[in-house]
Amino acid sequence: MARVQARVEAALERLLPSAAIAPRRLHEAMRYAVLGGGKRARPLLAFAAGELAGADPARLDVAACAVECIHAYSLVHDDLPCMDDDVLRRGKPTCHVEFDEATALLVGDSLQSLAFQLIADHRLSEDPAVQLEMVKILAAASGSRGMAGGQATDLASVGQTLTLQEIEYMHIHKTGALIRASVALGARCAHGLAPEQLARLDHYAKCIGLAFQVVDDVLDQESSTATLGKTVGKDAADNKPTYVSALGLVRAKALAEELREDAHAALATLGGAAHRLADLADFIVLRKF
Amino acid sequence: MARVQARVEAALERLLPSAAIAPRRLHEAMRYAVLGGGKRARPLLAFAAGELAGADPARLDVAACAVECIHAYSLVHDDLPCMDDDVLRRGKPTCHVEFDEATALLVGDSLQSLAFQLIADHRLSEDPAVQLEMVKILAAASGSRGMAGGQATDLASVGQTLTLQEIEYMHIHKTGALIRASVALGARCAHGLAPEQLARLDHYAKCIGLAFQVVDDVLDQESSTATLGKTVGKDAADNKPTYVSALGLVRAKALAEELREDAHAALATLGGAAHRLADLADFIVLRKF
Repeated sequence: MARVQARVEAALERLLPSAAIAPRRLHEAMRYAVLGGGKRARPLLAFAAGELAGADPARLDVAACAVECIHAYSLVHDDLPCMDDDVLRRGKPTCHVEFDEATALLVGDSLQSLAFQLIADHRLSEDPAVQLEMVKILAAASGSRGMAGGQATDLASVGQTLTLQEIEYMHIHKTGALIRASVALGARCAHGLAPEQLARLDHYAKCIGLAFQVVDDVLDQESSTATLGKTVGKDAADNKPTYVSALGLVRAKALAEELREDAHAALATLGGAAHRLADLADFIVLRKF
Repeated sequence: MARVQARVEAALERLLPSAAIAPRRLHEAMRYAVLGGGKRARPLLAFAAGELAGADPARLDVAACAVECIHAYSLVHDDLPCMDDDVLRRGKPTCHVEFDEATALLVGDSLQSLAFQLIADHRLSEDPAVQLEMVKILAAASGSRGMAGGQATDLASVGQTLTLQEIEYMHIHKTGALIRASVALGARCAHGLAPEQLARLDHYAKCIGLAFQVVDDVLDQESSTATLGKTVGKDAADNKPTYVSALGLVRAKALAEELREDAHAALATLGGAAHRLADLADFIVLRKF
């Protein structure tokens, strides 16, 4: 895992525009927002799915960086004063605090463009039609019926009491969509998988996407700001519905465990090469930060 | 021109997510930001270039909507309080005034995703590799070395005195990049043009991209808020360098005229079907709003 994280860090370093190129402040801020932090969960998933499919790691570098650019853009925009108004992220001041709001806005916008540019700019598949499908998957996962839509639903939920189904709907979009896209993109960097195997992988991704958010909600309740590198207890303070507020801590933890088992089960017929994905399911559910 | 504008309006109406689909408020705000206003200069250019290449109008609908989604997203974000802080756009309250800042932020983000989704989701070329090239062109034109980068340079220029070369650099990115991409995308919806013809078209687009901004600066000085549907005199009030501040009104108008002639000259060898593009150059330079 550390090997892939280091590899992805190096790829991001290389694929982000240099701070020596104009507009320099914008490029510096883009690098600040992306480099040197984060668990890189989405890149790890793209790599693990890609290795299962037998993909060239050089291709996976690009796919992993594309999903991480989308993720980083969403964090920069979510942290803005008009959204979650947060000052700490990955243990550092958030982008708009370190730079300014206008720059942070443009950082997010530019990182989104860069994600699509990366996919279109590199050979990620023998078949350009598959590569176009990757653009489509990433765009759908990012947009109003994916991640951004989940964020809109999240904002609208402040002060509301949601049913478990509604919370699930919100998180399937807000967190789940990009996690599914990460697995889907990695898996498409080679032609090693049959449609039925891709469907199983997608089910795995759906489970861990949800588990990821359940665990996030648990940690937001149980952990400390120092450990997480971001402000804890904000959801409760903002009166946002979470898995913990809907289920309580004990049942939320049981749900995460159930989702982890479901994710493992989805991998059962995919053979030994799926062990990295199984490890990642454990990493996501059992993590402490 | 009115025929194409009406056609593009209908296509946008159809290709934007319905306000009946969740998240409804976000979709309503996306439609508010895009529909029922604007000159549709970029779609008109995509159509005119596409007709020259012999492209199917159904394909041009999609390409035109994609560039207009990018343009509309940039307007929504530029109008936010942390950027230009504007309250009037296309004769209506800006998106964050009509809805709220967080929604406007997500509207812009979602419109950008939608632009790439549209290109990836429809058959725009016999050759998927050409379609991937379209994604690449649009992403490069939108990102930190294109439109968003131009906007960052624009922000950094407030209160500065720039040389004409620096103003040109800023606008080649801020306005010019997406105008060039509009022409390039339209032209690639068919295989009717040789590389040398594509290069001429690109030179045409470069000229009118600049002319567009020169005329914008002139109108910002000479026209009224009622006529333009947006707040006039803001650049001067914000102490932003413009073509008018650098050249004065008379020389700025002469420059626009020169660019119009240069654009016409670039079309000279492209035959009679280029007359629409010539008309658009006139429309852009001679417009009063």
